Amino acid sequence: MLEHGGNLRDAAKRFGRDDWIDLSTGINPHWYPAPALDGKAWHRLPEPDPALLTAAQAFYGAPHMLPVAGTQAAIQALPRLRKPSRVTVSAPSYAEHAHHWAGHGHTMTLTPYGQLEQAVAHNDVVVVVNPNNPTGAIVPAAQLLQWADQLAARGGWLVVDEAFGDTAQHNSVAAHTARPGLIVLRSVGKFFGLAGIRLGFVAACSDLLRELADQLGPWTISGPAQQIALSALTDRAWQTSTRTQLQASGERLHTLLAGHGITSSGTPLFQWWAEPQAEQFWQHMAERGIWVRLFTQAARGIRLGLPPDEASWQRLHTALTQWTNK
Amino acid sequence: MLEHGGNLRDAAKRFGRDDWIDLSTGINPHWYPAPALDGKAWHRLPEPDPALLTAAQAFYGAPHMLPVAGTQAAIQALPRLRKPSRVTVSAPSYAEHAHHWAGHGHTMTLTPYGQLEQAVAHNDVVVVVNPNNPTGAIVPAAQLLQWADQLAARGGWLVVDEAFGDTAQHNSVAAHTARPGLIVLRSVGKFFGLAGIRLGFVAACSDLLRELADQLGPWTISGPAQQIALSALTDRAWQTSTRTQLQASGERLHTLLAGHGITSSGTPLFQWWAEPQAEQFWQHMAERGIWVRLFTQAARGIRLGLPPDEASWQRLHTALTQWTNK
Repeated sequence: MLEHGGNLRDAAKRFGRDDWIDLSTGINPHWYPAPALDGKAWHRLPEPDPALLTAAQAFYGAPHMLPVAGTQAAIQALPRLRKPSRVTVSAPSYAEHAHHWAGHGHTMTLTPYGQLEQAVAHNDVVVVVNPNNPTGAIVPAAQLLQWADQLAARGGWLVVDEAFGDTAQHNSVAAHTARPGLIVLRSVGKFFGLAGIRLGFVAACSDLLRELADQLGPWTISGPAQQIALSALTDRAWQTSTRTQLQASGERLHTLLAGHGITSSGTPLFQWWAEPQAEQFWQHMAERGIWVRLFTQAARGIRLGLPPDEASWQRLHTALTQWTNK
Repeated sequence: MLEHGGNLRDAAKRFGRDDWIDLSTGINPHWYPAPALDGKAWHRLPEPDPALLTAAQAFYGAPHMLPVAGTQAAIQALPRLRKPSRVTVSAPSYAEHAHHWAGHGHTMTLTPYGQLEQAVAHNDVVVVVNPNNPTGAIVPAAQLLQWADQLAARGGWLVVDEAFGDTAQHNSVAAHTARPGLIVLRSVGKFFGLAGIRLGFVAACSDLLRELADQLGPWTISGPAQQIALSALTDRAWQTSTRTQLQASGERLHTLLAGHGITSSGTPLFQWWAEPQAEQFWQHMAERGIWVRLFTQAARGIRLGLPPDEASWQRLHTALTQWTNK
């Protein structure tokens, strides 16, 4: 299995402390507060709730959606729904896409963001993470829709992973997914800070969603996840204040890094930079109880999520100062 | 997708009432009470908790286990882990097994329980539900172990679905799964009444569990599911009193049916019989707000789960009397 952030047990095993600040993911540290749950949510086989679907379609602005047990479930299932195809995945980006498209008989290549335009012509499936994880790179919606048309004309797919799209909804292509061949993935884990409930949504044309639902089988979304997400997706007040707060925190992180000579890019939920001494930086932070995400493969560098509270911001500030003065 | 019990939304849509007694599943109506949860259970990416695994291995008496998002996840994944094979599934039994083994290039046949012995010789994979759902039929553990040896000698598998095995632990083969080729599925949903959390366990040799884990990908078990199950699996007092209570309730259901001329079989969690007027019985009960499970395929008949309270027992009693006097 691939390595990911959020693995605090590994951190504790390697560095043996218990006061970790976990900055290794891009998950909102101020999660949506779970409402009181109906006890039957734990008990009953979780039938799909039509109200949840309506709420998701309104929030994401998509005509048709399917709830899935985290974006991960869709990433694993989509490559199974096509005959062997020529597939390219934007690079660097979230590694699970390439990992799963590399199987199932497909011919998978990686394409740097700058060369995606040309790659569209030679492939049946193009996968783009938008905004990108970890670099924050953005492809404009109009560009994506043009690629989707080109691919669809040949029976191809454009898969757009908008897991970090909730703070950039203006650039989402979810509204255009009634057309065949355009597939958008959305995550409830990041913006709402609810990675523990395992819930995401796929927006696509109804035929493809039906095939995907068959592939994934019944009862994929737990009862509690359905109840909490229904509340989160319809809570406009929380969503609005969270967008403002994340915007400010993201800028604060960018500015803090800049103050230490680090030029970073990213989204309101994380910052990333190509760090020449990536392993040393990771080690330096780990020795101070700060768990960051080290990328050693396609994207060589460091990703930092948002500190959860003022004390953590201060510890990060101190550790960065010590790094700069080394 | 196949039809299943627990679909109360369908019941309401067809019969338009809101006072349903749901007897359409075999899930314990007195579910394990969820403990207060750490808020971070909703928030963090759910790392696998070693304590949960230890608790499950102790409760099920198995040397190696893998948590999965409900037995269903394992049922869907296992057929993907073998090259095209000759597979037979015991019949009648839980329909999802045959449904998934029928794909992925396998040659799938159904074998009546009485003829399984002979089928072992001609197949690479044999799937048995023990105790069986919906009939309650039991294959003795010693017999299963002998079949497992025969199959393993040829690189084959015996898959034993013990989803309803928690009230018949003496007949479990989970303790013997360190050997290659014997795979046991256990469900947290039925006995603990926690179908909403999506959690089950697979017991098998470590190599197979590793392949299965790779197949299923990361973060399959939600944070809340891990916390609740850890509590449920280690609560010996609740387990003991629940076993006693389910035994008594199962006998009460059997006796109630017998009093209305119905000879049923099953487990403490459900009773089943081959009902010649199955559709009429189902319709009769639905008109009285009692949702039962109608089987029209392999097992033609009716399955009833346990009524949740005394008022429900009385409504069932009345409806049965009206059926008998029709």
